[in-house]
Amino acid sequence: MASIFALESVLKTNDLPINVKFIIEGEEEIGSPSLVDFLEDHTELLKCDMILNPPDAGMISATQPTIVYGLRGMVYIELRVDGPKMDLHSGLFGGNIANPANVIADIISKLHNPDGSVAIPGFYDKVRPLTPPEERELIAMAGSLEDSYIKLTGVPRLYGEEGFTLLERQGARPTLDVNGLYSGYIEEGAKTIIPAYAKAKISCRLVPDQNPDDIYRLIKSYIASIVPNTVRAQIFKHSLGPAYLADDAPGYENLANALSETWGKPVTLKREGGSIPVATNMQEILGVKSLLTGFGLPDDAIHSPNERQHLPTWTKGVQALIRFLMSFAE
Amino acid sequence: MASIFALESVLKTNDLPINVKFIIEGEEEIGSPSLVDFLEDHTELLKCDMILNPPDAGMISATQPTIVYGLRGMVYIELRVDGPKMDLHSGLFGGNIANPANVIADIISKLHNPDGSVAIPGFYDKVRPLTPPEERELIAMAGSLEDSYIKLTGVPRLYGEEGFTLLERQGARPTLDVNGLYSGYIEEGAKTIIPAYAKAKISCRLVPDQNPDDIYRLIKSYIASIVPNTVRAQIFKHSLGPAYLADDAPGYENLANALSETWGKPVTLKREGGSIPVATNMQEILGVKSLLTGFGLPDDAIHSPNERQHLPTWTKGVQALIRFLMSFAE
Repeated sequence: MASIFALESVLKTNDLPINVKFIIEGEEEIGSPSLVDFLEDHTELLKCDMILNPPDAGMISATQPTIVYGLRGMVYIELRVDGPKMDLHSGLFGGNIANPANVIADIISKLHNPDGSVAIPGFYDKVRPLTPPEERELIAMAGSLEDSYIKLTGVPRLYGEEGFTLLERQGARPTLDVNGLYSGYIEEGAKTIIPAYAKAKISCRLVPDQNPDDIYRLIKSYIASIVPNTVRAQIFKHSLGPAYLADDAPGYENLANALSETWGKPVTLKREGGSIPVATNMQEILGVKSLLTGFGLPDDAIHSPNERQHLPTWTKGVQALIRFLMSFAE
Repeated sequence: MASIFALESVLKTNDLPINVKFIIEGEEEIGSPSLVDFLEDHTELLKCDMILNPPDAGMISATQPTIVYGLRGMVYIELRVDGPKMDLHSGLFGGNIANPANVIADIISKLHNPDGSVAIPGFYDKVRPLTPPEERELIAMAGSLEDSYIKLTGVPRLYGEEGFTLLERQGARPTLDVNGLYSGYIEEGAKTIIPAYAKAKISCRLVPDQNPDDIYRLIKSYIASIVPNTVRAQIFKHSLGPAYLADDAPGYENLANALSETWGKPVTLKREGGSIPVATNMQEILGVKSLLTGFGLPDDAIHSPNERQHLPTWTKGVQALIRFLMSFAE
């Protein structure tokens, strides 16, 4: 209760014990085209000891305060396989020409092992293991999400790398997914061709300490080693970005204590599967890692009609953040 | 020379020794929509002892008369693999959901063996072998077409089932090719999704004595046996058609002799890789197999600008056909 009294006195007197600088950005959903320039042009103005990012993460449930301490990085490539210079009659040429659609399927198939792990040699070499048993136990505190994932996605059964839980796979294990696949005739009906070419968009989600440039090179040389000499293959780079791990961000302990004091239970630590580029940008430009928490809930219908903010959680969040600022000042 | 004299007397007297009925059809390039109905409505009018189809096949070269005695059949299917009910964020769900694009690539990859043969159990069970050594020798007489195929298609190297020549693969061996492949995001740039579904158009060229219905069932049950339980898969049927072998068509010996007498060398026998549906239609409706030959040449630029008919070959073809009719009448 001590800090609540302190809060009330702060609110009454406007006497915050630390300086607070706000960055409010309205372009996040279109890829933040102005953000990096703004940060680079204002490094002096934005100089700080700690960065708190409360809108870009959320809570696991209304009763469970959460800190996101890890984000995944990305390597996004495009693979193109060229066969004959034009689509060919599959009757006249079928059986004598390597079919680029079949070849790209073979290549994609060889990117994974039967146990669900990625088959590219060296892919896991730099992956930082979860610190056993503490980190796995902390992640396990969030409970099982299998049933809700099946309901949400409609898949008959979940699938993933053996030996890891859903949340471990989501945040702490790298992945490789085909995001798009095209070859030949894809309209209604049938056309008996051997397609001239096939292409696939393929991306990896990376985890600490995988280096995106290294992973890109590993993918490229592995694919080159399995492409048959009956076709020509090319790889294009779409984007590269590193993973992010912020369990050592300034104020981490203060935030964890403020959240658990407010909700009356220990904080859940979560590695998130996606990326929050502003956190990486700020670390690179301002030299400070971000604290990632938030007060959105899984059923807030983010980006959907009737999006909401749960007001009791919002109020608790305000209390937690004041507690955090007071404690960080000390 | 005897028959040439006979020819001249035929041309002078109009005194053909047999009745000839012509069917001239102008819809072949749009799939002959009226042909089957016409045949079925006129079985009495079209009653005959022999059918000669000279426009739908061609010669290997201007100096090499050719009879096409085999055509391949077809099984054309569509495979659809459904995963989540909508495209998913690959960061939040990647690693925990089977990706339909990856799964369809795995399935396609398992349709062939490493040696280029089709991996579907039972696929080759009914394939009629080339009669060694006669049939293979006859096919080999056409010479090697490898270089011209590479030039024509622009591929770095040909590819095919081990143990067979190009012409054997083209006409006497069944194949399986992906004709179209689609999943997820295929426009310019990148989108980080796990696609909701993937689909592939897949067709087999069949040879005697493969039964299209049997092959369709074999494909269907094999794919069902390799689909993982983390997705849902469906197979649709586009079309089924049997292969065609006409070395026992009425008049076969007469035609071979007439051609070789005219060109002064033995006839090359060829199994064609494509299909000529009218031959199958006539066999089914009129009960007579067709003789397939022709006087077009590989460099006639069929379906292209400046398509031509080589007049010296045309003249020889007329002589050969008169010889054939005279001999068949005897």
